[in-house]
Amino acid sequence: MGKHPAADASQQTALGSDELQLIDAWWRACNYLSVGMIYLLDNPLLREPLKVEHVKYRLLGHWGASPALSFVWAHLNRVIKRDDLDVVFMAGPGHGAPGVLGPTYLEGTYSEIYPDKSADAEGMQKFFKQFSFPGHIGSHVTPETPGSIHEGGELGYSLSHAYGAVLDNPDLIVACVVGDGEAETGPLATAWHSNKFINPARDGTVLPILNLNGYKIANPTILSRISSRELEALFVGYGYTPHFVEGSDHAEMHRKMAHTLDTVLGEIRAIHRQARANGNLERPLWPMIVLRTPKGWSGPKQINGHKVEGSWRSHQVPFSDVRNNSANLEVLEEWMRSYRPAELFDAEGRLIPELKALSPQGPRRMSANPHANGGVLRRELKLPDIRAYAVDVLHAGKVLQENTRPLGEFLRDTMRANMNTFRVFGPDETASNRLQSIYEVSKKVWMAEMLPEDEDGGELARDGRVMEMLSEHTLMGWLEGYLLTGRHGFFHTYEAFAHVVDSMFNQHAKWLDISRNHVPWRAWVSAENILLSSTVWRQDHNGFSHQDPGFIDLVTNKSPSVTRVYLPPDANTLLVVADHCLRTTDCINVIVADKQKHLQFTTIDEAVVHCAKGIGVWRRASNDEDAEPDVVMASCGDVATQEALAATAILRERLPELKLRFVNVVDLFRMQPASEHPHGSTEREFDSLFTTNKPVIFNFHGYPWLIHKLAYRFRNHENLHVRGYKEKGNINTPLELAILNQVDRFNLVIDVLDRVPRLQGRSAHLREDMRNAIVSNLNYAHTHGTDRAEIVDWVWPF
Amino acid sequence: MGKHPAADASQQTALGSDELQLIDAWWRACNYLSVGMIYLLDNPLLREPLKVEHVKYRLLGHWGASPALSFVWAHLNRVIKRDDLDVVFMAGPGHGAPGVLGPTYLEGTYSEIYPDKSADAEGMQKFFKQFSFPGHIGSHVTPETPGSIHEGGELGYSLSHAYGAVLDNPDLIVACVVGDGEAETGPLATAWHSNKFINPARDGTVLPILNLNGYKIANPTILSRISSRELEALFVGYGYTPHFVEGSDHAEMHRKMAHTLDTVLGEIRAIHRQARANGNLERPLWPMIVLRTPKGWSGPKQINGHKVEGSWRSHQVPFSDVRNNSANLEVLEEWMRSYRPAELFDAEGRLIPELKALSPQGPRRMSANPHANGGVLRRELKLPDIRAYAVDVLHAGKVLQENTRPLGEFLRDTMRANMNTFRVFGPDETASNRLQSIYEVSKKVWMAEMLPEDEDGGELARDGRVMEMLSEHTLMGWLEGYLLTGRHGFFHTYEAFAHVVDSMFNQHAKWLDISRNHVPWRAWVSAENILLSSTVWRQDHNGFSHQDPGFIDLVTNKSPSVTRVYLPPDANTLLVVADHCLRTTDCINVIVADKQKHLQFTTIDEAVVHCAKGIGVWRRASNDEDAEPDVVMASCGDVATQEALAATAILRERLPELKLRFVNVVDLFRMQPASEHPHGSTEREFDSLFTTNKPVIFNFHGYPWLIHKLAYRFRNHENLHVRGYKEKGNINTPLELAILNQVDRFNLVIDVLDRVPRLQGRSAHLREDMRNAIVSNLNYAHTHGTDRAEIVDWVWPF
Repeated sequence: MGKHPAADASQQTALGSDELQLIDAWWRACNYLSVGMIYLLDNPLLREPLKVEHVKYRLLGHWGASPALSFVWAHLNRVIKRDDLDVVFMAGPGHGAPGVLGPTYLEGTYSEIYPDKSADAEGMQKFFKQFSFPGHIGSHVTPETPGSIHEGGELGYSLSHAYGAVLDNPDLIVACVVGDGEAETGPLATAWHSNKFINPARDGTVLPILNLNGYKIANPTILSRISSRELEALFVGYGYTPHFVEGSDHAEMHRKMAHTLDTVLGEIRAIHRQARANGNLERPLWPMIVLRTPKGWSGPKQINGHKVEGSWRSHQVPFSDVRNNSANLEVLEEWMRSYRPAELFDAEGRLIPELKALSPQGPRRMSANPHANGGVLRRELKLPDIRAYAVDVLHAGKVLQENTRPLGEFLRDTMRANMNTFRVFGPDETASNRLQSIYEVSKKVWMAEMLPEDEDGGELARDGRVMEMLSEHTLMGWLEGYLLTGRHGFFHTYEAFAHVVDSMFNQHAKWLDISRNHVPWRAWVSAENILLSSTVWRQDHNGFSHQDPGFIDLVTNKSPSVTRVYLPPDANTLLVVADHCLRTTDCINVIVADKQKHLQFTTIDEAVVHCAKGIGVWRRASNDEDAEPDVVMASCGDVATQEALAATAILRERLPELKLRFVNVVDLFRMQPASEHPHGSTEREFDSLFTTNKPVIFNFHGYPWLIHKLAYRFRNHENLHVRGYKEKGNINTPLELAILNQVDRFNLVIDVLDRVPRLQGRSAHLREDMRNAIVSNLNYAHTHGTDRAEIVDWVWPF
Repeated sequence: MGKHPAADASQQTALGSDELQLIDAWWRACNYLSVGMIYLLDNPLLREPLKVEHVKYRLLGHWGASPALSFVWAHLNRVIKRDDLDVVFMAGPGHGAPGVLGPTYLEGTYSEIYPDKSADAEGMQKFFKQFSFPGHIGSHVTPETPGSIHEGGELGYSLSHAYGAVLDNPDLIVACVVGDGEAETGPLATAWHSNKFINPARDGTVLPILNLNGYKIANPTILSRISSRELEALFVGYGYTPHFVEGSDHAEMHRKMAHTLDTVLGEIRAIHRQARANGNLERPLWPMIVLRTPKGWSGPKQINGHKVEGSWRSHQVPFSDVRNNSANLEVLEEWMRSYRPAELFDAEGRLIPELKALSPQGPRRMSANPHANGGVLRRELKLPDIRAYAVDVLHAGKVLQENTRPLGEFLRDTMRANMNTFRVFGPDETASNRLQSIYEVSKKVWMAEMLPEDEDGGELARDGRVMEMLSEHTLMGWLEGYLLTGRHGFFHTYEAFAHVVDSMFNQHAKWLDISRNHVPWRAWVSAENILLSSTVWRQDHNGFSHQDPGFIDLVTNKSPSVTRVYLPPDANTLLVVADHCLRTTDCINVIVADKQKHLQFTTIDEAVVHCAKGIGVWRRASNDEDAEPDVVMASCGDVATQEALAATAILRERLPELKLRFVNVVDLFRMQPASEHPHGSTEREFDSLFTTNKPVIFNFHGYPWLIHKLAYRFRNHENLHVRGYKEKGNINTPLELAILNQVDRFNLVIDVLDRVPRLQGRSAHLREDMRNAIVSNLNYAHTHGTDRAEIVDWVWPF
């Protein structure tokens, strides 16, 4: 909240009529710009009568949501200036980019960043033309938009982004306009509950402004068509104090909005006083605003006898046939002149000084708020030395350890060293994923009711910093909001249910791709780090519905400049990978590592060297002594590596003359050519590991065809035989599940016997033994419900 | 609702204390079975003192949610029997399978379907052992569970499944227990609004029962920790009349639950009377129940001084160390004996007759309700002849048509012929996707407020049958509920945002895979038909955020027995494909077809022949006359086909001596080997189309590497050069976007020049012309904002 003593004094100020008229004029300027963006190629100030050649050939854009966005912006400016507030604007209806772009242009920010879109007639013409124009900016609030961290192309995430942005930003307000279309999505519907995780002493304020403009593309919205009793109850139920601003008369709505904003800011101040001065950390009832305005507000009332303002017909371009229909050309000109541009812009096309004076200055402009270009605020994490958490691996393949537990200790101390800039997010699974050491430093934040029994292991606290809610959508949204405002985070989830946020991953990857490669003024933000645990191979408890390693398939579809995938085989490699990921920027790191006890293979020194390469030969498991092997056994993933090593042990014991090379892959993109991904391998690197003509048995954590998708260009691809998960599963013991999908040691040995030419038709004994082992292990599992305990001893005798 | 006249007379019956004691005994039997399933290998009736060898080696399962599920079941049985109700039970907390399996066993259904799990001690022992045991059934309500259409492994979809099930089933009640964990997910949070789409005259009733047991895996739940004022307001806001049943005392809770169920049924009857007798179709306030019970209710109160009943410690197995800890063994025995099994089961292990008599009979048992094995109720769709909707293609490549518009007419008449068994689902995009002809037969159902302006093109009606809400999750859930209860449906969505329901697709595919291949008693249900429109190549309006063709990548990871993907190149092939899909069962059909105007290539007769093959040579575009061509030009997808044909036209004009074969793929899985997918191609088929050694330029709709993932095993794979979407996009004209991703005609010609050995180093003129064409077309787009109109004339001169 505002730091000036004047702030409180100005509380409840009514809006004078002069001020009202100025705000209305500023809003008219915004609306004028919105229409201009959608329609005009030239004649931006309408200095001459509008002609066909001034109109774009194709009319693209979303008018409907735009006026209300600018309306909110205009009113926020008043209180920002008056109270010196620090406010970020979030446009949930991000399709309505004109309603955001207009204000950024009027505030001067747009011209500062894009000097050719100068604050004059020439710049305005370019500003109009570029909108939704090939080779220029899109029709949403894309990353090119200053002041924005939210695209709004895919709906549903504005509110969780807003809440993520205010965590640990006590003086920040995010004014989040939520569209009533967006409000129907699941992710948005549950994000209202984010208020149960906001500590009013430590975190900032989200001011949700639900804009009920009544319509989606072609339908009314649910929330605009329920009774006012239900509407109010819904937001009371979500834990808010709703305030209603409803109408269409411009002057009246200006008065209502100004008054309501004053009221709401007063409530926020009172909440902050309670928490910050009085130390009352009970969950407050945060205010929110319901702003009911006509869709396409201030636009044409009717076209051809059909209602347009206040109707779904305003959603995109209210009328398109302009170049061939002189009546419509007249309607357009009349519409634009209704905003009285000559009163708003001077002869050079500059906003008149009285209106210019309405904007806040410098970084107080919402279009220039540094939080919305978070990279400029970002500071490197202070990271502890991973060696302090390393598992002591005196004998590789003998120590059992939950792979994620040391990571939890590392994250604990990372949090300790970065208490206001680092958070961990997970859907009710931090302990399940064995990361609970974090709680030693910070518990789970919980602003809902506390019970005495929570004292006994509940790990809840008002000032906790671990975020847990059973909504992957909300968590991911919080994380994105936190990262894009310049902080650091770590998200972990069950592997199968990462698919719940597939689409959020896609959108964040697209945002980063554009920001990193096409928007030079956006400073680097911290990587989004995603740990997938409770993986496909350890679903003894939950079975088939929890078996899906396909999230990483999705990752490989997005821009190589922003995607990274790591599958560390054990606890120490996981530490090295996590340490690396926490230092990276402008990308998404996906780490796949199971939480259960696994054999440990690498010392921390070995892990550092191996992870630096991302792929490499494990010499102790190999016996090819740098000569050409008979076969390459390769692995990627923890369970896959264990089984491949066990198969290698069997082969080396039973067929000591077989020359075998063992390759492990940590960095999945090393399997792609260097031409396709920055982490890719050159042909020479690949051939030197996998040979150019020897069989390669590749044991993979995920769906086997993903490896072919990555590696198909390499020379030895035709000899690459990949094993992985093939949707064969139910309630299974670990070994049984491996056998069903043929990633187990016994099947891998048979694969080698099948593929190495000089073994074909020989080694009948070994083959028979493997078949017997499969049968007897399955029988044991089906009788006892468990695997034979001793099978882990087979793994690494080297 | 009940059909017997007795039904109304019994309204508001209080529960006599004898009846209460019987219901309590039946519930105790359920709880006894739940604990037995989780812990016991033998000694099911505790006829002898419990010993270590009677206990399972691994204890797996979820106790916490189970008792409340059985509690609800027991009470529903009372009113089902009394009023002859038709009720399906839906277990949102589907992890708590013991709480559902117990009732199905007590009702006899389980033993009827699985005779070795007989209703005696021997059967009970097997029933206990199989639970969460390798090779047997899972710990969730898996497809093997009679009476269920909802797995509950992934949380969030119970309520939308329930609402889908009651559509067009006026006499059906779905009692949907929603877990308070699940209630935090986005999909569940918005599914409450489904009541705005239920017509009380035509549709059945969902009775939501929110079970506030207070805890998730390791955290309290949000809804259990807000004030009762907020909780009540929330459900009033969602449009329900909430009824509260709260407590832990067994006798008192039985009384409250019985009374509340009577009240609630009375309200439902009143709603039905209003709608069905009085014709009042205003949206009613449906009742719902908030059932607040301790987690792990009736289980151990404390273990080792820690609270267990009413705590997250009850979530899974309340205490595990039984085989090595005799104190815990005693606790277990004491716990099980607390249910007094000897009073519940006779000496043979059969439920005593007084308790057996509590269950309804035959198909009135919720465990045997035919709606939950919907295939037995399913009737084939009556489908109109697609020829009536065919586009007249006198000259291939000359007619322009929106590909999806004829499909809309076909769906319209399909709906007309199947008014109670077919629905179309789409997120506010039916008209946007050009399927609006459907509205001629049935409008969009809308039970929220209607306004006069809706008359003008709103296409809304109380009795509409088209389902539109801006929540892909809710729509997909409705569709799944509708299909699994034996009906037919068609879902369409924007291609990029199909990813929103990736995880729902995964789960439904897994459900179908198990049902089809492992559960012989489940009758076939209609396919889930998904049309992806507004595709990647036509995002002129929305740009980069709307460009993602990766949903089909996801599809190819799931079991080949249930996955199908079609990319019809034009309107007639789309009709043929849709007609086929609507006839299929137990699978998911994904159809990719754009909504914009495209050139038409096939007559309906050609389309029928081509789609039957799924892949084939287009002879008019080819000039290899069945000899070996110099190059194969292949395409898959509408825009990809247009550009590949245009490239072919250029090549044939400029290089008439070049022998070129044109192959089109409709059925994507034809690109996989027959060994991998039932629609796959044999080696011979593949080689005969693609040759064994000639270059193949494959122009693909989606991400190019998907084709490599499918086809890597084929002989000519190394000569396969695939073009597709590579995440290069923004606001682009169609041709500009094609050029950026190199799927355009000009780049394809250059590809041919690069790949055909005898053209290499020659044809410099043609190459130069192509480069110039690229530059001039990009310049045109950037100047005018549109493509040159005439480029479509280049396409099909053959």
